[in-house]
Amino acid sequence: MLSKLIDPQSVAVIGASAKQGSVGYVILENLVNRFQGSVYPVNPKYDEAELWGRKLKFYKSILEIQEAVDVAVIATPAPTVPKVLEEAGRKGVSAAIIISSGFAEAGNAELENWVRAVARQYGIRVLGPNCIGIYNAYSNFDTVFLPADRAGRPPPGPLALISQSGAVAAAIMDWAARRRLGLGFMANYGNKADVTEIELLEAFANDDRVKVITVYIEGFKYFGEARRFLETARKVAVKKPIVAYKAGRGSAAQRAVRSHTAAMAGTYEMYHGLFKQAGIIEASSVREMFDMAKALATQPIPRGRRVLVVSDSGGMGIQAVDALESLGLEVPEVPESIAKELKRELLPFAAVSNPIDVTGSATDEHYKIVIDMLLPTAFFDMALIVTLMQVPGLTKNLSEYIIDAKKYGKPIAVVNFGGSELVQKFEEALEDNGIPVYPTPDRAAKALWALYKYGEIRRRL
Amino acid sequence: MLSKLIDPQSVAVIGASAKQGSVGYVILENLVNRFQGSVYPVNPKYDEAELWGRKLKFYKSILEIQEAVDVAVIATPAPTVPKVLEEAGRKGVSAAIIISSGFAEAGNAELENWVRAVARQYGIRVLGPNCIGIYNAYSNFDTVFLPADRAGRPPPGPLALISQSGAVAAAIMDWAARRRLGLGFMANYGNKADVTEIELLEAFANDDRVKVITVYIEGFKYFGEARRFLETARKVAVKKPIVAYKAGRGSAAQRAVRSHTAAMAGTYEMYHGLFKQAGIIEASSVREMFDMAKALATQPIPRGRRVLVVSDSGGMGIQAVDALESLGLEVPEVPESIAKELKRELLPFAAVSNPIDVTGSATDEHYKIVIDMLLPTAFFDMALIVTLMQVPGLTKNLSEYIIDAKKYGKPIAVVNFGGSELVQKFEEALEDNGIPVYPTPDRAAKALWALYKYGEIRRRL
Repeated sequence: MLSKLIDPQSVAVIGASAKQGSVGYVILENLVNRFQGSVYPVNPKYDEAELWGRKLKFYKSILEIQEAVDVAVIATPAPTVPKVLEEAGRKGVSAAIIISSGFAEAGNAELENWVRAVARQYGIRVLGPNCIGIYNAYSNFDTVFLPADRAGRPPPGPLALISQSGAVAAAIMDWAARRRLGLGFMANYGNKADVTEIELLEAFANDDRVKVITVYIEGFKYFGEARRFLETARKVAVKKPIVAYKAGRGSAAQRAVRSHTAAMAGTYEMYHGLFKQAGIIEASSVREMFDMAKALATQPIPRGRRVLVVSDSGGMGIQAVDALESLGLEVPEVPESIAKELKRELLPFAAVSNPIDVTGSATDEHYKIVIDMLLPTAFFDMALIVTLMQVPGLTKNLSEYIIDAKKYGKPIAVVNFGGSELVQKFEEALEDNGIPVYPTPDRAAKALWALYKYGEIRRRL
Repeated sequence: MLSKLIDPQSVAVIGASAKQGSVGYVILENLVNRFQGSVYPVNPKYDEAELWGRKLKFYKSILEIQEAVDVAVIATPAPTVPKVLEEAGRKGVSAAIIISSGFAEAGNAELENWVRAVARQYGIRVLGPNCIGIYNAYSNFDTVFLPADRAGRPPPGPLALISQSGAVAAAIMDWAARRRLGLGFMANYGNKADVTEIELLEAFANDDRVKVITVYIEGFKYFGEARRFLETARKVAVKKPIVAYKAGRGSAAQRAVRSHTAAMAGTYEMYHGLFKQAGIIEASSVREMFDMAKALATQPIPRGRRVLVVSDSGGMGIQAVDALESLGLEVPEVPESIAKELKRELLPFAAVSNPIDVTGSATDEHYKIVIDMLLPTAFFDMALIVTLMQVPGLTKNLSEYIIDAKKYGKPIAVVNFGGSELVQKFEEALEDNGIPVYPTPDRAAKALWALYKYGEIRRRL
């Protein structure tokens, strides 16, 4: 239903501008240079303009465009929006994204009601106003009005983000771009005069390119909304994981939420309970949300909670166990018969009970032996592998052994820490091949916990 | 007392080797090429060797060296260690670092006792065996036997690390080097046949270049040791902050600790109580330890717990408040008279109660106005400043306004998130000028908490 909004073939930019740095300029620049569909600049001030080495025709009104237009992106001053939206309605667009601010968030609820009325009259689905809109990494449909050198654009990939905050969404995109994290879609809904997070959730649920949906939320406006969100999420969570972070927990935070999005922050406990009922995996920070999402997008669901821990550092192995146990996961001992066999294959001082310590003198092959001997057995459901690549015997080949272990069909998370080129190359090889890497044991443990948790949710719903 | 061990003028490398990649080779390479003192290779197999473009004289024994030697670094096979240590004693060294393994950790407690007896007889202080020894970023005295391309060497700076795990210490060094974090000293004590973490704590307490001591510990061997550690730490904590991370909390983790360092892991609660009594700030991960240490090394102690939060993203401001409140810090409202004045100076939609939201349309000057109007007042003890640099109006100049705010003598932590060049340049400018930067609000909040906590500890002890 919202597929045209997220995945249009043709777009009119109303309020497109030739004035460098303006909102209408940045949106036009991004679309003209990278969007795979058709772009029609609309602004009565221009007939045409020479931009980015080409001559662009400008339209006086969206009604002048001959071709069909799927989406109108509106970046004109607030008071003009009802009129241009009406024109878009007469043109027959499916959806509009209103970037402009100056509506309910600025005390102009009347103007927003008017926009809503126009949208209903013409059957236009409206995202916004007061939003940064949509980013679609597949078609480069992109209404984020921040230049790419300020806010990077992430590569296509299995994650989608629904964000109540535009600035937080832009910062997440920038961060994901740097880390080459596949964030295929971002949607920011601003004042949600029409389209809500609930419908966006449904839209991403129905898009096969999306494997995991992440949600940044500050609060709902009223309880009915929260209830409908819960009902929708329960249906979606059976199909694919939803990970959410609720900002605004304490009292000062709730005061800020009211001021920021006029949302009913509710008690944090209410949201916590709601997420639980809805089968949503709750994150305690934005970073943790993506740590978990990365694993959920690439790893299978484990059968149980028993984790094999392998490390070349006793200390890091212990940290991993700390983190896993505190999350309710188990680190069972290795059965004695296998431990004896391992003892023969590894170095004399290696620890062969779980956590396995291959020691700082280990080679790539020692990891391979442990993984191949233990991970396929019925004693372990998943693996947390710590590879401090600072020790002398390890090479980038180790990444191939770990990638090869995907054949056992059990989740794997790797902890890798440091800054050398070897460390970076090793990490890239793993992540490019669907093995999530984390800089600390607690983050990897939380990612494995999310996989276990999602398995529980699937069984329950 | 241990100053010669950490800061020697002259070093003999016993077991120095011309065989590329060997432990004795890497240690010699690091010392010959970077150490600011004198280096004497000792190995009866060589008369001299052409290494790194120069001719190096090798000594048959440490006794052949004419000049005074402060420290003997020993990397010969375990069974030979008592003999070479005895020679070092006869030569009159103050201290020895025994890198070699194959002692108590491998079941050879007898051999370790023998080493201890020799050390006592000659009054040599011994670090190790089974350790990576010392890294001193000021003189480049460096016995870490991992090449610099695997394990980076951090720049000089106010932090010192005492680590029970060598591999964890090497990974921390590599990570700190990448982030240009000033880790001036690292000491890893291995089996602690003689020198303990307690004496290292005293040594760093007495070294004026060290502002904050970080401790990675898995466990003590017996209760008396824990008690002495507590007594020493109480004395040190009055002078400078100690931040510690205890690895090994749950039962499987404790099993692993026993196997890794033969330490008495104790219940985690015991350590928690011990740290509290000792005035040690406890971290829940290695990363958090350095997040807190970075702030403790650069920021003043706050007078109270009231935090001013400024953000260009309502969402991030809310996350910051969440994190601060959950740690027991306060985010008080701005007094009405000041709020009114602020309202006139900021953008119409800015939120002027704490957290202050300068909005995504803010300029550098808006931050300056807020900081200069509020931070010097008696209403706030410290500031958490969120700068999402993705928004269009901010420039690198903002870093200068924040650095300038140091004149108010109150702690500041900045949250900055993303990946663009602007983000990185901005961060470097701040960190190079003593303002700690964190990628997420919860990490910055924890750092401010550590400052508050240290103030409490100082008042209590």
